[in-house]
Amino acid sequence: MLDVELEWLRVLASAGLINSGIPDAVAPACQASRYNTADLAARAQGGGNPVIPLLADLRALVRKEAPEAVGPIHKAATSQDILDSALMLMASRTLETILADARRVETALGDLARRHADTVSVARTLTQHSLPSTFGLKAAQWLHGVGQATAALDTVASALPLQWGGASGTMAALTTAADAADHSPLTLAADLADRLGLVDPVAPWQTNRIPVTRLGASLADLLAAAGKISNDVLLLSRPEIGEVSEPREAGRGGSSAMPQKQNPVLSVLIRSAALAAPGYTAMLQAAAGAADDERPGGSWHVEWQALRQLLRLAGGAMAKLAELTEGLTVNTGAVARNLELAGPLVVSEKVMARIAPLLEGGVPGQGKKRVQELVARSLAGEDFTELLRGAVPAEQLADQELTELLNPANYLGQSQALINRIISAYPGRTNA
Amino acid sequence: MLDVELEWLRVLASAGLINSGIPDAVAPACQASRYNTADLAARAQGGGNPVIPLLADLRALVRKEAPEAVGPIHKAATSQDILDSALMLMASRTLETILADARRVETALGDLARRHADTVSVARTLTQHSLPSTFGLKAAQWLHGVGQATAALDTVASALPLQWGGASGTMAALTTAADAADHSPLTLAADLADRLGLVDPVAPWQTNRIPVTRLGASLADLLAAAGKISNDVLLLSRPEIGEVSEPREAGRGGSSAMPQKQNPVLSVLIRSAALAAPGYTAMLQAAAGAADDERPGGSWHVEWQALRQLLRLAGGAMAKLAELTEGLTVNTGAVARNLELAGPLVVSEKVMARIAPLLEGGVPGQGKKRVQELVARSLAGEDFTELLRGAVPAEQLADQELTELLNPANYLGQSQALINRIISAYPGRTNA
Amino acid sequence: MLDVELEWLRVLASAGLINSGIPDAVAPACQASRYNTADLAARAQGGGNPVIPLLADLRALVRKEAPEAVGPIHKAATSQDILDSALMLMASRTLETILADARRVETALGDLARRHADTVSVARTLTQHSLPSTFGLKAAQWLHGVGQATAALDTVASALPLQWGGASGTMAALTTAADAADHSPLTLAADLADRLGLVDPVAPWQTNRIPVTRLGASLADLLAAAGKISNDVLLLSRPEIGEVSEPREAGRGGSSAMPQKQNPVLSVLIRSAALAAPGYTAMLQAAAGAADDERPGGSWHVEWQALRQLLRLAGGAMAKLAELTEGLTVNTGAVARNLELAGPLVVSEKVMARIAPLLEGGVPGQGKKRVQELVARSLAGEDFTELLRGAVPAEQLADQELTELLNPANYLGQSQALINRIISAYPGRTNA
Amino acid sequence: MLDVELEWLRVLASAGLINSGIPDAVAPACQASRYNTADLAARAQGGGNPVIPLLADLRALVRKEAPEAVGPIHKAATSQDILDSALMLMASRTLETILADARRVETALGDLARRHADTVSVARTLTQHSLPSTFGLKAAQWLHGVGQATAALDTVASALPLQWGGASGTMAALTTAADAADHSPLTLAADLADRLGLVDPVAPWQTNRIPVTRLGASLADLLAAAGKISNDVLLLSRPEIGEVSEPREAGRGGSSAMPQKQNPVLSVLIRSAALAAPGYTAMLQAAAGAADDERPGGSWHVEWQALRQLLRLAGGAMAKLAELTEGLTVNTGAVARNLELAGPLVVSEKVMARIAPLLEGGVPGQGKKRVQELVARSLAGEDFTELLRGAVPAEQLADQELTELLNPANYLGQSQALINRIISAYPGRTNA
Repeated sequence: MLDVELEWLRVLASAGLINSGIPDAVAPACQASRYNTADLAARAQGGGNPVIPLLADLRALVRKEAPEAVGPIHKAATSQDILDSALMLMASRTLETILADARRVETALGDLARRHADTVSVARTLTQHSLPSTFGLKAAQWLHGVGQATAALDTVASALPLQWGGASGTMAALTTAADAADHSPLTLAADLADRLGLVDPVAPWQTNRIPVTRLGASLADLLAAAGKISNDVLLLSRPEIGEVSEPREAGRGGSSAMPQKQNPVLSVLIRSAALAAPGYTAMLQAAAGAADDERPGGSWHVEWQALRQLLRLAGGAMAKLAELTEGLTVNTGAVARNLELAGPLVVSEKVMARIAPLLEGGVPGQGKKRVQELVARSLAGEDFTELLRGAVPAEQLADQELTELLNPANYLGQSQALINRIISAYPGRTNA
Repeated sequence: MLDVELEWLRVLASAGLINSGIPDAVAPACQASRYNTADLAARAQGGGNPVIPLLADLRALVRKEAPEAVGPIHKAATSQDILDSALMLMASRTLETILADARRVETALGDLARRHADTVSVARTLTQHSLPSTFGLKAAQWLHGVGQATAALDTVASALPLQWGGASGTMAALTTAADAADHSPLTLAADLADRLGLVDPVAPWQTNRIPVTRLGASLADLLAAAGKISNDVLLLSRPEIGEVSEPREAGRGGSSAMPQKQNPVLSVLIRSAALAAPGYTAMLQAAAGAADDERPGGSWHVEWQALRQLLRLAGGAMAKLAELTEGLTVNTGAVARNLELAGPLVVSEKVMARIAPLLEGGVPGQGKKRVQELVARSLAGEDFTELLRGAVPAEQLADQELTELLNPANYLGQSQALINRIISAYPGRTNA
Repeated sequence: MLDVELEWLRVLASAGLINSGIPDAVAPACQASRYNTADLAARAQGGGNPVIPLLADLRALVRKEAPEAVGPIHKAATSQDILDSALMLMASRTLETILADARRVETALGDLARRHADTVSVARTLTQHSLPSTFGLKAAQWLHGVGQATAALDTVASALPLQWGGASGTMAALTTAADAADHSPLTLAADLADRLGLVDPVAPWQTNRIPVTRLGASLADLLAAAGKISNDVLLLSRPEIGEVSEPREAGRGGSSAMPQKQNPVLSVLIRSAALAAPGYTAMLQAAAGAADDERPGGSWHVEWQALRQLLRLAGGAMAKLAELTEGLTVNTGAVARNLELAGPLVVSEKVMARIAPLLEGGVPGQGKKRVQELVARSLAGEDFTELLRGAVPAEQLADQELTELLNPANYLGQSQALINRIISAYPGRTNA
Repeated sequence: MLDVELEWLRVLASAGLINSGIPDAVAPACQASRYNTADLAARAQGGGNPVIPLLADLRALVRKEAPEAVGPIHKAATSQDILDSALMLMASRTLETILADARRVETALGDLARRHADTVSVARTLTQHSLPSTFGLKAAQWLHGVGQATAALDTVASALPLQWGGASGTMAALTTAADAADHSPLTLAADLADRLGLVDPVAPWQTNRIPVTRLGASLADLLAAAGKISNDVLLLSRPEIGEVSEPREAGRGGSSAMPQKQNPVLSVLIRSAALAAPGYTAMLQAAAGAADDERPGGSWHVEWQALRQLLRLAGGAMAKLAELTEGLTVNTGAVARNLELAGPLVVSEKVMARIAPLLEGGVPGQGKKRVQELVARSLAGEDFTELLRGAVPAEQLADQELTELLNPANYLGQSQALINRIISAYPGRTNA
């Protein structure tokens, strides 16, 4: 908020609307560390927003240190101009960190995807073993989730708008001031946006809160992508499954009471952030739809905590996800063991396609039924390979061919092609 | 879902993977009216999704009517392929209607904005009268809200993706089938996307649900923009305010018990839709973040009802909003009366800027204090014009200039420029 | 709604306010099957609620079949009286089924808890093995969750209130009608509540929506308790864990493409319901907080879909949970195997308490450090039992005592006592 | 958290399980002001909760100040025991303040209801004037909303449970410790509950989160009741309506730019709290339904922020609502003026009931039609009283009777009786 007030003075000075020395005279008072935030928060309730007491304190400081500079402070601005612009500025700065961490995640996941493109694993649907796949494709899909969300957030980050409408969104006071000096209020606002690294909007958006809801939804999408990964890591690092483990670090995940225990704390905290996000986006959407008049009474106030909290959750989650993905251990032995546990039936879909026609015996549908019987007997304990061998003569299906038919590594479909497509979709973000 | 199954057969036939007559033989069975949806819904619980019983019924029908065509149905597909693609197809069709209605709204609001660019009104912030503005700017801001949301929804509508990954997202069965005929599974999927008017995605998105959350968030943004308008209409059409009235239509808004009453039912229902939307987007976000494995167990199922409901709410709200904005009556008499009620103090911000320097008397800050005293006396009942006249000598401020100073129509800031900017931002959507 | 209209006529007739033959003359028209609900839904948009068109159709029917009975229909009532009371009536009927299923669940879980009170298992915190516990305690905690939620829902079910306030909550029309016959409007309303099995409220609750939010929150609590169970079943029935399996039933959980696969569909659908619930409770809370005037404009309309959906989700989930818990298979072999996988370190907390004092050697804290070293060496591959044997002389800890110290079955704490406390907390609901 | 740790030492000492001087030796270190919360928050991420670093700091302090007392700290407890119990303890203390403010609100509203029992006003439904009512009934309904929510919250406040289950909810470590001294772990836990003013629960509730969701839902209900009042005050204090005004206080609601403006800041902030609440309850419900195993991984962590925030919002809202309701000005002149604006048609429901039978002329339904015509002509500008006078002969309806028929004060239904019932429902909370 102090940065917005100060840059506005620079705009005014640069336009010759105020004395050129004013901004530098006010600058020392624009350091956040000089203010008592708890006191500001308490006093913020008087006017319903923190700009009013902050401004009082800022003016008091300047009055003491550079009295001639007090007058122009906050000239022609309204509380919502300062607060909304500061919100966007804060988002802009926080997003830099979040996006940098997201890129670390993308790089790490691209590496994982490439490295494990041939690590044959068992895919799971509705918790049960389904078909063979690769750990690389799983990592590529994680990348795809984070990559899509990051790209969208990037777009949002580069379109965060300035708010500059004056008391009622007409720029009336500014018009009065600017007219006097043959300036266009719209040009002055554009200059401010430029100085703050924000976008100059079509119009003030005091009651059109899409800049806020869109940012919130994009953060929530990133958190959902992170949540998906954490869900998988939590599952796959269970002792009974053991396919991955989180990177260990001194002081993390330990339990004093149970010294043998190593908790996947990074994933736990990422999942926690993903679970909280929908409630905050619901608040932002509710606030946007409750707007009325020329400034929303009450719904505007909901945004501050919800948006800050989403930024915090995304910031924390992406830092942890970067650490998690960069240090994730894939236990290929366990991956292979779990695939083995799935048994040869993991390719039953392929067996059906290949064998059923051989067992048709002239009766349509007969082949499918006979394969189903073999599967049922296998589920009851008989050896699937032997059952197939007994059912199909070797001249129709040589031993070697049967062995290859039942090899999960031969039923990976487009796993490699999809990994490539996903990695190519995020060029420049992975270690080539 | 039937359309997806049928188009897939056309893809297979066109690629020579199945007999070319199959699609036409199956087509008659692909009419939704031939199915008992309540029965399908009940049976859907067996497998956790409606594709399984639908497929059973489809196959039973085809077995009776064209038995040779049963075999290829649903070849190499999985339930999620059908359901997700059908969800996108349904969204695509519904969005056509929603977007068409949104354009009617944009046109109507552009007209209102132009027509009332000079209708001076009182702006309101935190429910209280603040500064002069115009009804045209209010309508322009309504347009801005709907216009931004519609543009984003338009982008989403043109990027709805096909889902085609097979049982575990590897396209394994399809690869087996396609390999036999020297086809690329990815090309076949792209052909299907093309036929359905959907986009061919980078990869299957079985556990990356951004296509769903983004659609949901865009619908919610449109509903929030509609909600803002309805809030304003509900306020402004209160008997005590009376600035607008909803279009009347036989059978709408009447009360049998209170024949004198005319309820703003369009706005009531639009507001209702806006109030419900955040809960549905929260569901979609929660579902996306709860995904795991290669198909989300349970969270996938949450999307169907939430997304359909958002489409319904948006569809209903935009149809009503089109009717509301096209037929909205602006009672300019009431607009003027309410502005008058605000009194000359509505331009006190301007008075302060113009008069305070005249009353400075060499003491910095003195002018501001003296104006504040005059305002206080005015609030206590004295005539503001006379107070000013008494305080400032005519040679400093002529009578004529004082009158113009106090005329709200002279303190509209950038109202006209902002109306123009907003209308220009949505070219081709308003009646030029 | 038809039931409410009809019972109201019975109240009026019983009070002598209308002809005693009217109710029976109207009754045949009060069968829901005689109405076209799609048409009613479409027309409901005219007045913003379905009572208006329903009433028109009801009157049209009665006009044809018993014209003399048309007049008194809906006498002194308003739409909200009928709709709110019908909502409560519908809830009351649905809750009977839900609560009956909840009691089946309680009984089944009580049985499971008792039956597996001695089935030693490994407890898991933050996904990792922690201490020994029993499967019975897990089942008892499931019971505790469902039991608490059911008890609360039971209380809510017995306090569902009638709505009877007339056009603006003053009972004005009813007062006019009742005064003429020396009746008290409040007594008439109490009679109606009684006939409908609803509670006579302190006052009309047209804008105080606690009856709705409380019902919604109680349903959500029940769904959360069900969701917790489904999460556990989904985890424990994974092939790598295998401690439980859902009851099998023809046509459920199968996969045509992968015949070996058996999906835990009951748990998937229950989890889905639990994931959706928070969005609906958010809608109900948002609606309650948005109420204004003497009837909420728009927020009232949000409740209908949200509350019905919560009732449906709870109804579906409890029916499935009853089937799930009554037929759940506990694979005690897998339970034991997973506990074994945890190894002797699962009792390291107890070892620390018992052994550390023996290794203190006069230096405070020394014993704890030495046990930690032994745990570390065990994690690195050495045998924990032998390490302990080597560290502590047999005279301080006999072999037999050491064996018992390391037996997980000897470190169950209050497992049995807690099972008993929980079962006792829900008397009469479990098979004694 | 420090209080919980300290009281637990007192329990252990009182049971003779530890040296009796320990608690007092540890007490000086149990002052929250001695800890660096920002540092604790940062380190909390290592183990996923703040208990671990807090405990390290507590032990370090005690090691310095009373080394012999370090050992027993946190004996047999787990992080979740401390955190959940501390959450309940914090809630318990905060609820005292909230409930005290709620009682101030109830008293103030009871006074308003009584004082304005005869202040005839116009009721509004769907924003439009409907029937006569009283301002007293509106205040009584406000009381009813707050009263119901407060009563429920009171019940919740007196049932906040201790959490004491040990590492996995079996109380295993505690059993080991207690057994050695012939103590029952359950009795020790009950003693701790008693000392903390919490309830001894049936069993640990590590994964049954109803204590949290119920508290959250009750706070949200209170916020919704407060929100309803704030919506009404925001509407009724609009300049065009003017029926109420918020209490003024120096420094509140002012606008520096627009000195004439007085914003209803109390209501704005209360409304803001009500708008935010549903998102937080959605988080708590989502967390409860996502629990798994013997401690929820990730969902547990969601509760802390959501529950604290709800307590803060409720605390702030009730303090403001107390001030608002105690100081609310009712402008009876404006109330009367707005009723007058509604005109005689505000009693058209009564006119219909009284006059239609007189105009029946032997044709059923004819009377109703004729009254409707008179209403339509009145809406078109004719004087309703004169129209009625012209339509009904004086011998059927004397002038005096007609005047009384049209007097809104004679059509208040059960307004007074309902006020009495509501006030009686909250005995002892209103100034008799």
